[in-house]
This record gives sequence, C-alpha cells and structure tokens, in this order.
Amino acid sequence: MYPESLQELIQGFKYLPGIGEKTAERLAFAVLDLDSEQVELFSDSIQKVKSKIHACKVCNTLTEDEECSICSDASRNTKILCIVEDAKSVFLFEKLGTYKGIYHVLDGLISPLDGINPEDIGIDKLIKRLNTKQFEEIIFAFRPSIEGETTALYIKQILTGLNIKITKLASGVPMGADMEYIDALTLERALNDRKEVT
Amino acid sequence: MYPESLQELIQGFKYLPGIGEKTAERLAFAVLDLDSEQVELFSDSIQKVKSKIHACKVCNTLTEDEECSICSDASRNTKILCIVEDAKSVFLFEKLGTYKGIYHVLDGLISPLDGINPEDIGIDKLIKRLNTKQFEEIIFAFRPSIEGETTALYIKQILTGLNIKITKLASGVPMGADMEYIDALTLERALNDRKEVT
Repeated sequence: MYPESLQELIQGFKYLPGIGEKTAERLAFAVLDLDSEQVELFSDSIQKVKSKIHACKVCNTLTEDEECSICSDASRNTKILCIVEDAKSVFLFEKLGTYKGIYHVLDGLISPLDGINPEDIGIDKLIKRLNTKQFEEIIFAFRPSIEGETTALYIKQILTGLNIKITKLASGVPMGADMEYIDALTLERALNDRKEVT
Repeated sequence: MYPESLQELIQGFKYLPGIGEKTAERLAFAVLDLDSEQVELFSDSIQKVKSKIHACKVCNTLTEDEECSICSDASRNTKILCIVEDAKSVFLFEKLGTYKGIYHVLDGLISPLDGINPEDIGIDKLIKRLNTKQFEEIIFAFRPSIEGETTALYIKQILTGLNIKITKLASGVPMGADMEYIDALTLERALNDRKEVT
C-alpha cells in the first residue's frame, strides 16, 4: 500500500522497542518533512553508531576509542568503582556530574529464571579487573530487583576476604513522589532504612 | 558526554516530532542492539524515502513513480473524488479497502489565523483537475475542525453551478466510545444528524 521506500522506513522504525505500527508510520511521515541535511545526519549516524561504537576495553562502557573518556581521565578517583548493569547507567550517573569514581559495566544482571548466569553478564572481565586493581570501595548501582540483589550477592561473595568497602544505592521513596502511589515494598524499605533527622 | 556518533544519533531522533531527549536516548541505545542488516535497511530507507518519494502528478499523494498506484489503477471509479488534507489520510482510507474512488491530496487546510491561505494548500492544482475532469461526486474528508469547514466551504464555492454531488464525512459519536467522555460539540452533532433506526 505504501510506496516501497516508505514501507521500508516504517519497518525500520518498528525494529525499535516500544514502536508499533502507528508510531512507525507517524515517524516515517515525519522523516519526509525533515530537510536534506537532517536526513543525512540521521541516516549516517545510525550506521556510524553501529560501526564505530564498541565496549571500552577497561570498563566495558560504550566508546568510539579503545579506552572510554572516563577511564582515560586522570582526574577520576580510580579507588572507587561503581558497578552498573548497562552502559546507559553510566551516562545517567555522568549527567549528575557528582560522581568522581570510575565504572564497570556488566552485560545485564544475573537472572537464573531467564537462563542468565554469571558468565553471561561478563563477570570474568570484572573479576580480572578486581584482581589486578586495588579498589577501596565498590558501589553496586543496579535497579532494585531480585536480579539486582542476586548479582550484588554474587559479586560480594567473590570479594570476600578482600579489604574492600562494599556499598549499594539507597532505596526508598523517590523525590517528588506522591505518597499514595508508592508501592508497599518501597515504603517498607524506606521505613526500615529511615535516617535520623539532624 | 556520549560518544560522538551516539550523540549525533540522539540528535537525529530528536528531529522527529514527539521525541524528546529521553526517548531519543532510549531509541539510540536500541539501535546499538539491532543487527547489521536491520541497521542498513533502517539507515538506507531514511535516505531513500527522502530521495525517491514525491507527489503524484495527478492527485498529489506520495509515490515513487510519476503517477501513484491509485491513479494508475484502471479499476478505480474515477467519477468519485475524495479530497483529503494530507497523504497520510489516503493511506488511512486505503487500509479500509472499501473506497473505490480516487483522491486529491491538499497540502493541509485553509487557516487564515495561521496565515495559511488557499494558494498555500495547492488549491490551483485541485481547480485545474476539477476543470479538466468531470466528477459525479466530491467527498470532503477533512478532520472535523474550523479549518476543515473553511476549506470545504471554499472548494464548494468553486464548484457552484457545476452539477456535482458534494458530500462530507459523517460526524458523530465514534464507535466504541464511552458516552461520558464524548465532548459536547460531538454529541450535539450526533444528535442533530441522528438517523432513523430501520
């Protein structure tokens, strides 16, 4: 029904998660309204992203270079390691601009029910790094979930005996949240981990 | 903060309407997970859409050929002309598969308040077509709005004196709608245009 190239573009958008037929059609029509320069940048960047971006050889985050800009930044505190579940998390923390340590990016979280075992999330690379470098603090920054806890527990066991401070992100009531919409588990955590008002 | 090519891709997605920073980031990361074949199809189709697709010389809809597949389809009823506000509408009707007439695509609707006058929506091309071809029925298929009514009125005046049946889409309560969420204007229309139950 659609001209061939338009149909292909709709298909292209549909490859992306969360984009169904209607949205894909809307976006494809929107591409027709872009100017040539925008179209070229958009089209080129899709291929460039795929061909240029790969994992940093040290921390496994996304980079176009051999070592990412964080690993090669001499001003970072290399004694503090924040372990995250994906590269996206690195950028979330970097946006804050307050964390000055370094990162290690896993390929997801351990989830035995989904058949995802430690070896599937690149634990080897992390262990190798933990064995060669001396860290003072390891921060687990996983999403609060069974998988996050499982992964944290697994790594914690590896670190047993080493004199490293192990921390994890605080969980509790998110800022600006409406109390009545907070789930029971979050509220329970927030209550258990309550802090003294000083 | 992001590697350059990733940043460019995020920018590319942000050119599209309804896509903000967060969604653009999510989609750009999703592109990284596509396989090479998908990436190539996606990237190529963006450029192809822009270079290959243009307006049908007869009806102004989108096509890769000189004449669109509808205009060059001998089985269509060329006596009935459905006038729509954009090419997207053509595909919406074609999806139904029930309309057998032909189309004319305007470049939007007349909207004096936004400075969009008849000459801005390609009325000339329509008038030329109306003068050279003899139609039995003209259907206005614009979105129900001041602009839609203005445009319909304008074209109707042009047709004055010609022996052509002029119709417009029925307006009323949409199928499956919850009565309490229907706006007053729609309900008023539905009441005025009520049909006898037979």
